[in-house]
Amino acid sequence: MFNDQFLKSCRKEAIDHVPVWYMRQAGRSQPEYRELKKKYSLEGITEDPELCAYVTKLPVDQYDNDAAILYKDIMTPLPAMGVDVKIQKGIGPVISNPITGMRDVDALTALNPEKDVPYVLDTIKLLRKQLNVPLISFSGAPFTLASYMIEGGPSKNYYKTKGLMYSEPETWFKLMDTLGDMVITYVKAQVQAGSQAIQIFDSWVGTLNQADYQFYVKPVMERIFNELQGEGVPLILFGIGARHLTLDWNSFHLDVVGLDWRYPIHEARKDGVTKAVQGNLDPTVLTAPWRVIETRAKEIIDQGLEQPGFVFNLGHGVFPEVDPAKLRQLTAFVHDYSKEVLSKRNG
Amino acid sequence: MFNDQFLKSCRKEAIDHVPVWYMRQAGRSQPEYRELKKKYSLEGITEDPELCAYVTKLPVDQYDNDAAILYKDIMTPLPAMGVDVKIQKGIGPVISNPITGMRDVDALTALNPEKDVPYVLDTIKLLRKQLNVPLISFSGAPFTLASYMIEGGPSKNYYKTKGLMYSEPETWFKLMDTLGDMVITYVKAQVQAGSQAIQIFDSWVGTLNQADYQFYVKPVMERIFNELQGEGVPLILFGIGARHLTLDWNSFHLDVVGLDWRYPIHEARKDGVTKAVQGNLDPTVLTAPWRVIETRAKEIIDQGLEQPGFVFNLGHGVFPEVDPAKLRQLTAFVHDYSKEVLSKRNG
Repeated sequence: MFNDQFLKSCRKEAIDHVPVWYMRQAGRSQPEYRELKKKYSLEGITEDPELCAYVTKLPVDQYDNDAAILYKDIMTPLPAMGVDVKIQKGIGPVISNPITGMRDVDALTALNPEKDVPYVLDTIKLLRKQLNVPLISFSGAPFTLASYMIEGGPSKNYYKTKGLMYSEPETWFKLMDTLGDMVITYVKAQVQAGSQAIQIFDSWVGTLNQADYQFYVKPVMERIFNELQGEGVPLILFGIGARHLTLDWNSFHLDVVGLDWRYPIHEARKDGVTKAVQGNLDPTVLTAPWRVIETRAKEIIDQGLEQPGFVFNLGHGVFPEVDPAKLRQLTAFVHDYSKEVLSKRNG
Repeated sequence: MFNDQFLKSCRKEAIDHVPVWYMRQAGRSQPEYRELKKKYSLEGITEDPELCAYVTKLPVDQYDNDAAILYKDIMTPLPAMGVDVKIQKGIGPVISNPITGMRDVDALTALNPEKDVPYVLDTIKLLRKQLNVPLISFSGAPFTLASYMIEGGPSKNYYKTKGLMYSEPETWFKLMDTLGDMVITYVKAQVQAGSQAIQIFDSWVGTLNQADYQFYVKPVMERIFNELQGEGVPLILFGIGARHLTLDWNSFHLDVVGLDWRYPIHEARKDGVTKAVQGNLDPTVLTAPWRVIETRAKEIIDQGLEQPGFVFNLGHGVFPEVDPAKLRQLTAFVHDYSKEVLSKRNG
């Protein structure tokens, strides 16, 4: 039987229990995954639909989560655009040909998902046959992708990214447009292949203040959500430390606003967030004894259930040192406790 | 003639021009400093009062800034407490004996500034003879210091720090108390030696949500400011991404709240910040053409001057790639533009 609680929550419909998934639920916190990574690279897993479907489905089976999220990286579509990116252990994505000006932006090619990343679409098709929960696909957002492409890798202060943005606005907007086109094409292909929800990761955009966000980034984000709203699947937007941008996000044609752990759900709603919300347990709380985890989870569920439209998640990705047993216990708790609250309310 | 504009602004008194200083104004953005660092380590400079005074004074002379900030590191007092810390190039502080539990906290010894860091006090005395602007000294705050001491170095997610905090509250509060004692002793000795203002850096505390901050960190911060308010020098508190904690900060016995670039001054005041404010140009804007820098600086000055009590600074430290000529030009602009605004206002 198909479990549609996640899709219902995204659409602010009535639910029986609060749906749960975890950012990076498939990854280095799982011993099975760490074992696989001894033999396969991230790309090796991504490009093998059987293996990638296994990795994607594993946490759903193990934790009883209400949604799967396709295993891949936000960098996955970039090589086809001409970006020479390698995922380096302990560092993250490293790019040998960073963007330094208009010439580099002009050299980027358009993504053709069927030709360039057929394995992504094949994995989606395969997973739709295997899963009895919704499959979420995702894409990086233009700012976050651009930050890697300009810095040449992960960054602390994004000074090259902002330097290009402030100094060469024409180059910047061309890059935003090119990446915006990619996101739209990539997401549409993933939905066409069978993805039932989309999360856009603008992980690092919180480094911009609101005025810069509104001028340099908001237009492309508006275009992306305008183009995607007709696809018929819930659209989620997430970033770290982006509380000061949340009302801009709430104005987009999207369904769910992701909150990090520093923005309590009831404050977000009080501030004017009208969309469904997703979040927001600090993943570091998972290192605490169970009574601490339970207290925090309860607070979040209580706040989340005050209005329709709530998906339980962490406020950032699961990190490698988290014990999978804690995640299993947490999912069970969210299900049980929210069922109790909801059945009291309805009965 | 002594330039007291900075002290007056901290105390919300009338000024002739907006005072300026820059976090990390002495550092790798200066060719003279980079040259020195070929021969001397950070510790080598810090422990040599003549040299340290030269490094501290250089940006004041070069940029015409209204305050000096003593060159040293937030790690400087820790070795005397038993922390084996080395500043490693390209990484930052690396600690070979991180705190893992109560035994490690119990082993920390109290700081005796006169005996343990006499060079800090000697440099302050020397600088007071050389400077015609106020000398700011500083200390790291307990949370930020603890994060290095527990992680063993810089961190992205602070999971060991928060893990200890959530799992062993007794150990955590003992560590906060020990570091709180150190901060109080260290700051008092620096004021005694002649420092005319103190900035407390709680650089990374913004990683906590407000509820955790209020429970795990606020008590020690209250104690620190209660103990220091009688010292007769302005007290400044600064951290990155700490907008959600700013009203807690505003309740402390301090004089100036430091804002990062994502929290516009007029919003902070509208939200209830009643102290003087310091900030908050995004340092990455310094990579932009001058017209962009000028526009942003102007906005900040206009907002800052709406109420008494404003110190112009960046929203984070100067980074190595910043051109010193831009900083010189920026200081001159803040002085000239604010003089113009203030003299018009006064008729």
